[in-house]
Amino acid sequence: MAPTDRFVSETTFRVRYAETDAMGIVHHSVYIVYFEEARSHYSRTIGADYAEFERDGYYLTVGEVHARYMVPTRYPQVLTARCWVDELKSRTLTFAYEIVDAETQQVCVSGYSRHVCITHDGQVCKIPDDWAKRWSQGGPESG
Amino acid sequence: MAPTDRFVSETTFRVRYAETDAMGIVHHSVYIVYFEEARSHYSRTIGADYAEFERDGYYLTVGEVHARYMVPTRYPQVLTARCWVDELKSRTLTFAYEIVDAETQQVCVSGYSRHVCITHDGQVCKIPDDWAKRWSQGGPESG
Amino acid sequence: MAPTDRFVSETTFRVRYAETDAMGIVHHSVYIVYFEEARSHYSRTIGADYAEFERDGYYLTVGEVHARYMVPTRYPQVLTARCWVDELKSRTLTFAYEIVDAETQQVCVSGYSRHVCITHDGQVCKIPDDWAKRWSQGGPESG
Amino acid sequence: MAPTDRFVSETTFRVRYAETDAMGIVHHSVYIVYFEEARSHYSRTIGADYAEFERDGYYLTVGEVHARYMVPTRYPQVLTARCWVDELKSRTLTFAYEIVDAETQQVCVSGYSRHVCITHDGQVCKIPDDWAKRWSQGGPESG
Repeated sequence: MAPTDRFVSETTFRVRYAETDAMGIVHHSVYIVYFEEARSHYSRTIGADYAEFERDGYYLTVGEVHARYMVPTRYPQVLTARCWVDELKSRTLTFAYEIVDAETQQVCVSGYSRHVCITHDGQVCKIPDDWAKRWSQGGPESG
Repeated sequence: MAPTDRFVSETTFRVRYAETDAMGIVHHSVYIVYFEEARSHYSRTIGADYAEFERDGYYLTVGEVHARYMVPTRYPQVLTARCWVDELKSRTLTFAYEIVDAETQQVCVSGYSRHVCITHDGQVCKIPDDWAKRWSQGGPESG
Repeated sequence: MAPTDRFVSETTFRVRYAETDAMGIVHHSVYIVYFEEARSHYSRTIGADYAEFERDGYYLTVGEVHARYMVPTRYPQVLTARCWVDELKSRTLTFAYEIVDAETQQVCVSGYSRHVCITHDGQVCKIPDDWAKRWSQGGPESG
Repeated sequence: MAPTDRFVSETTFRVRYAETDAMGIVHHSVYIVYFEEARSHYSRTIGADYAEFERDGYYLTVGEVHARYMVPTRYPQVLTARCWVDELKSRTLTFAYEIVDAETQQVCVSGYSRHVCITHDGQVCKIPDDWAKRWSQGGPESG
């Protein structure tokens, strides 16, 4: 369940027909893209836009991803993707996710992804302080 | 590391340009599709074609997926996807994977997926005996 | 250019990172998905939901698709997808599209897709009258 | 129909489950990726690897793409993607495609894509002579 002691972002969107498969449901690989959307939205919301992070000379590479599928979703269902910071360390950042039906709030898929900070030439490095601060605040920009 | 006490299937293919992202590497969600290709190939190799499984009235839904990213891959790299049965239970089947560089054999991504057997109307059910046998044999059709 | 003599739907969304490629831009195949989103939105807006059309026993198969790429788009750009009915015949329906930058309104990609009405067993058929009427009205539900 | 007066490359692959949609067929946007695979294969076959072209400082941007869908394809069908050079001009290159069932040779989808040569900073430019020669030869490397 999404935590109540920190900022949880929410972004809502509709399943695309192209995202379904021959079982008539959203293909399981698509939720990994939804997770990415959820953390992009999270970062934008707290004023830590990922495109700006890239321009600053860093990447957050994905080290690990995990998804647990509980309820299938279908076109043209409207989903809400929740995201929060699960753990912030010197060089790594873990986001957690819930994909829920926007209407019923039923949790359909949950998961997490662990990210490692690297420079553009691929060296693992410390997350820059100002960025770490933004992610640790875990609240909207004004917070 | 891929086990030596059971059948490990291998399928080799080239990274597609469309699978890369703005970091110049294969997007992390794409490996989940590679995993699926690996297990489809596994099942075909042992004579347990998934399309036939569907025609028999069953689906193997994905309950869980996990990927660990060690080395990025790029277009037009040639990759080998290895797959083996990690665990076979009455109603669930776990496949494990390694995505390796076809030339150097370096392991780039590893992972697993857990599947649950359901009927076409969505009820969880026992994996049919003849199918369980094929997956448990874990060897090529003649094995 | 989008016509002024009929209804033109607009839906706005943000480019996803997963949709970019190693050139740093949105991969050209992705716009075909944006076109589909645009016509799904069009149909929902005029009260002709495609999911309902499928439940009624029909599919609109894609017979042809064309895209012209003028300006590349990038993550995390916000885009507006415009869609209108270009031609409605007894058995076919042609939608036209423009993908524009939501801020500057610059047209980045344009295109069209031609669809053929079929039954669920794959026979080409006349578009049912009530559906043809909805698409020909080319206006919002109350229009 | 594929021409007989020039080199036509062929690459064969299996439909991926992830490429299907809720209609049970390969989603129409996927063929645009197949086209790209076909022309990458074409270029590799004639010794004009696209990755090398990028390293030389150029991109072939996609200016236009067109697909005509005749017969749906399904998982786990094996397809052959044919590609040939339809037209080579000073700054543009047009490839044509056929996606056929590998077994029956039935043409399922045909299409073309028009490409414009640009430098890495986005300026339209003449296709370098040595590359133009390779594409115009339209034959395998030794040809």
